[in-house]
Amino acid sequence: MPEESASAGVPAEHHAPTDIGPVTTDATPKGAALMDAIVNLCKRRGFVFPSSEIYGGFNGFFDYGPLGVELKNNIKQAWWSDMVHRRDDMAGLDSTIIHHPTTWKASGHVDNFTDPLVDDRETKQRFRADQIFWAPVVVAGETIGYVSALEDEGYEQRAAEDALALKRKLAKQGELAPLALRDLTEAPAEIYALIPSPGSGKPGTLTAPRSFNMMFATHVGAVADDSSVAYLRPETAQGIFINFKNVTDTGRYKIPFGIAQIGKAFRNEINPRNFVFRSREFEQMEIEYFISPDADWAALHKEWIDYVINWFDGIGIPRAKLSLYAHPKEKLAHYSKGTTDIMFEFPFGVQELQGTAVRGDFDLKQHGDTSGRAIEYFDEAAKKRYVPHVIEPSFGVDRIFLAVLSAAYGEDVVEGEKRVVLRLHPRLAPYKAAVFPLVKNKPELLARAEALYRRLKRRWNVFFDTTGAIGRRYRRQDEIGTPYCVTVDFDTLEKDGCVTIRDRDTLAQQRLSEDEAEWFLAEKIDGYR
Amino acid sequence: MPEESASAGVPAEHHAPTDIGPVTTDATPKGAALMDAIVNLCKRRGFVFPSSEIYGGFNGFFDYGPLGVELKNNIKQAWWSDMVHRRDDMAGLDSTIIHHPTTWKASGHVDNFTDPLVDDRETKQRFRADQIFWAPVVVAGETIGYVSALEDEGYEQRAAEDALALKRKLAKQGELAPLALRDLTEAPAEIYALIPSPGSGKPGTLTAPRSFNMMFATHVGAVADDSSVAYLRPETAQGIFINFKNVTDTGRYKIPFGIAQIGKAFRNEINPRNFVFRSREFEQMEIEYFISPDADWAALHKEWIDYVINWFDGIGIPRAKLSLYAHPKEKLAHYSKGTTDIMFEFPFGVQELQGTAVRGDFDLKQHGDTSGRAIEYFDEAAKKRYVPHVIEPSFGVDRIFLAVLSAAYGEDVVEGEKRVVLRLHPRLAPYKAAVFPLVKNKPELLARAEALYRRLKRRWNVFFDTTGAIGRRYRRQDEIGTPYCVTVDFDTLEKDGCVTIRDRDTLAQQRLSEDEAEWFLAEKIDGYR
Repeated sequence: MPEESASAGVPAEHHAPTDIGPVTTDATPKGAALMDAIVNLCKRRGFVFPSSEIYGGFNGFFDYGPLGVELKNNIKQAWWSDMVHRRDDMAGLDSTIIHHPTTWKASGHVDNFTDPLVDDRETKQRFRADQIFWAPVVVAGETIGYVSALEDEGYEQRAAEDALALKRKLAKQGELAPLALRDLTEAPAEIYALIPSPGSGKPGTLTAPRSFNMMFATHVGAVADDSSVAYLRPETAQGIFINFKNVTDTGRYKIPFGIAQIGKAFRNEINPRNFVFRSREFEQMEIEYFISPDADWAALHKEWIDYVINWFDGIGIPRAKLSLYAHPKEKLAHYSKGTTDIMFEFPFGVQELQGTAVRGDFDLKQHGDTSGRAIEYFDEAAKKRYVPHVIEPSFGVDRIFLAVLSAAYGEDVVEGEKRVVLRLHPRLAPYKAAVFPLVKNKPELLARAEALYRRLKRRWNVFFDTTGAIGRRYRRQDEIGTPYCVTVDFDTLEKDGCVTIRDRDTLAQQRLSEDEAEWFLAEKIDGYR
Repeated sequence: MPEESASAGVPAEHHAPTDIGPVTTDATPKGAALMDAIVNLCKRRGFVFPSSEIYGGFNGFFDYGPLGVELKNNIKQAWWSDMVHRRDDMAGLDSTIIHHPTTWKASGHVDNFTDPLVDDRETKQRFRADQIFWAPVVVAGETIGYVSALEDEGYEQRAAEDALALKRKLAKQGELAPLALRDLTEAPAEIYALIPSPGSGKPGTLTAPRSFNMMFATHVGAVADDSSVAYLRPETAQGIFINFKNVTDTGRYKIPFGIAQIGKAFRNEINPRNFVFRSREFEQMEIEYFISPDADWAALHKEWIDYVINWFDGIGIPRAKLSLYAHPKEKLAHYSKGTTDIMFEFPFGVQELQGTAVRGDFDLKQHGDTSGRAIEYFDEAAKKRYVPHVIEPSFGVDRIFLAVLSAAYGEDVVEGEKRVVLRLHPRLAPYKAAVFPLVKNKPELLARAEALYRRLKRRWNVFFDTTGAIGRRYRRQDEIGTPYCVTVDFDTLEKDGCVTIRDRDTLAQQRLSEDEAEWFLAEKIDGYR
């Protein structure tokens, strides 16, 4: 019997979980400590490695290791299954990463997909102007100088401290007005040189902001000149728009319907950060859901947001950690009717996990105008021809990966011993089960366990482990999110033919026959169907 | 009852397939006509679209449509399942497309991943020098001139005709020696200007060959200069080598074991051709299988080749259309012990489908030397430390996609009517089944069929079609490879509760209860397990 069992040596009844012996105490870290723990686990157990680590790493790029690729694939497959296969109103697509460059002129990316960039002449640091926040320091109604801070967790606090320090240094008397922080793109030209750089700490060392296009450019064909420039897509969405006619011409899709696509996208981010949250090479899962211009877009928008929240909840990103953020009207693009982000409590703060935009007919119109052939749809039911409007639920695979880990990561104390556990949904867990022979030096036991492993492996990704005490083997599986461990012991051979199934989350153990064990796992693993 | 049934109106016995009524006659086109038929089907039914078609297309790039993405995903999932999940000696990986550029210096790609390129000064055409074949025309022992031809299906024939024409034009008497065709990279400098260009048809218009690196380059970071150059990977393999230590440090992998990865790769091909066979953006599935330097590499090499052939055969690329091509020793790189390609009878000729190379320890040594930290493995069993050698089975997803279609595509005549059929393996078929109500204007019938559709859709990707005669609905599914069509008819409602399952390949029909139908499909679709 596994050593954690409270009823060691006593044959347990079939089907009836044994009492949960061990008392557990939650000891999960929070905030930065949680983030460190996740990054550490990812490296230690082969979920995520910094890209090109042997060459000193490559800022903004991450490789997914043996367990990470499984988790990531499971997220993508769950999405495809729930967004495409199980709905009646969706088509899939897989367009190339490099499109004809005119695509990005039409979409506006060549002209507008830019970050405002500033350099610190002294320190040679490079900042995004919209991430530098500044304010005048006003004492008793008089502006005595300026402070600035780079946007991060504590920047407002730091700016306030700097303001106070300035007041003290200049020995100004009177009340310090609350700081009105704005970003550097909103700094009037006449005071620009007075704002201190977050790099040098001194005014006057920042260059004027310049537009920096975030698309990676390359050259296609044998000549590298302006005529051969092409871009790595910064989003998968445009590949959907330019294929709208191809899809409607070859399948019988009736509006409202959507086109979904999963694939890599690339952005030359100036400050990649927060692990896989903001990287330069990432993976998107995007949907363009085409609707009639007369449709109740607000209702459909809400329907999609609800559908997405349900989906997150269903794969182990709990509703309680999600919130909505509706972009203020004045910040929307002229063609946009609304964008709502689903925010998640990441360890580094509440940040965007997913967004659903209502983009009107902007994109299809742009591609129609630019290509010279209108992209229209004939609505049989309404007997009219129109350019469809679109609702765009957009997901980042890597962010979901991180959210899943953040929600699943736990540390607890079981019988006085610290345990790291990933409470992954069985759908997402890299291994669905692990099979252990109680000891490895009994050939019969080993053979019986291996036979069960082979049997289960025909259906699922299953791990086989013979090394170390059972308790240690449990710990290794807990840490990588394996929901069930199945142990073959002496009773299996000599008495009841049963195996012990141990549950990662409840720590409950039950004894089942091998057939029952397979049925049990099937229900737990595939039962979401 | 479906109209093809030979026993229309007669309740068929359960389980016993009815006789196959319709006589079929094979009328599948061959060669170029087959290729045209496949490309046409791909466009017509939404398997593959030329990329950026609304902007006139983009040479060497292809988008996968709603059915294409399903077939491609199924190929990738079958591969991952059979190469990674079902084996005990494999780990997965998903490394980035953009690595640290030093990776490609170490691997030799920056210096050597080049094509020899020549321009025609007159026609401005660009050719790969190794695709231009030339020969002296020798009549009665005297060289009277030169001929050349661009490598394709009939180039040897064309060169021979040109030689004959030259002999006639110059009115030379005597025997024309057989042409000794070689490619342009083997042309001695002194006769280079005498070789006619396949573009202008005249000697002297070709420039000297120059090296053209096939990697797409871009710049990472805010400054675009030499220091920021990075490359889109031209193969997924190097991402595996540079992660070897990460994988072995975080998992208990014992040599021999392999690391597998699926992902996009990019090559700036001068002449993309043969549809998705040779494109600029494509997807690879690669394995690096690490072995001891003392291992019997030849035996392991053969084992992998056999494993791969079996795999192809199992997904519907029949053994009979495959052949082996062992690269001649003198053409191998210095570090290579052997490379064997699996060739497939594509409609445009026998071409490489897959390759398995024995690369020795070249790559790990290069990355170890370049990074300054040796990449070694400590072999517990042998009690020694070494740089592993490697066997590299390398697959192209798009080529397999095309091979699968080439093998599956058929045209036949059924009861006097032409039928296009894709005989896809159920594992790969985009839709596993289609459900039809016999007629669409009977609400009860429609509801019963839809309920069955919903039930089956929980397990598989299933299509629902209510439109047109049953025969036409069968044809539409045959053409996209759906292996089974399930029809709900009046007898289902009024008599036996049974449905008709019709087999795409045998055209046999049988009546089964809905439960039996689901079990039947489960066995046929998932029974390969």
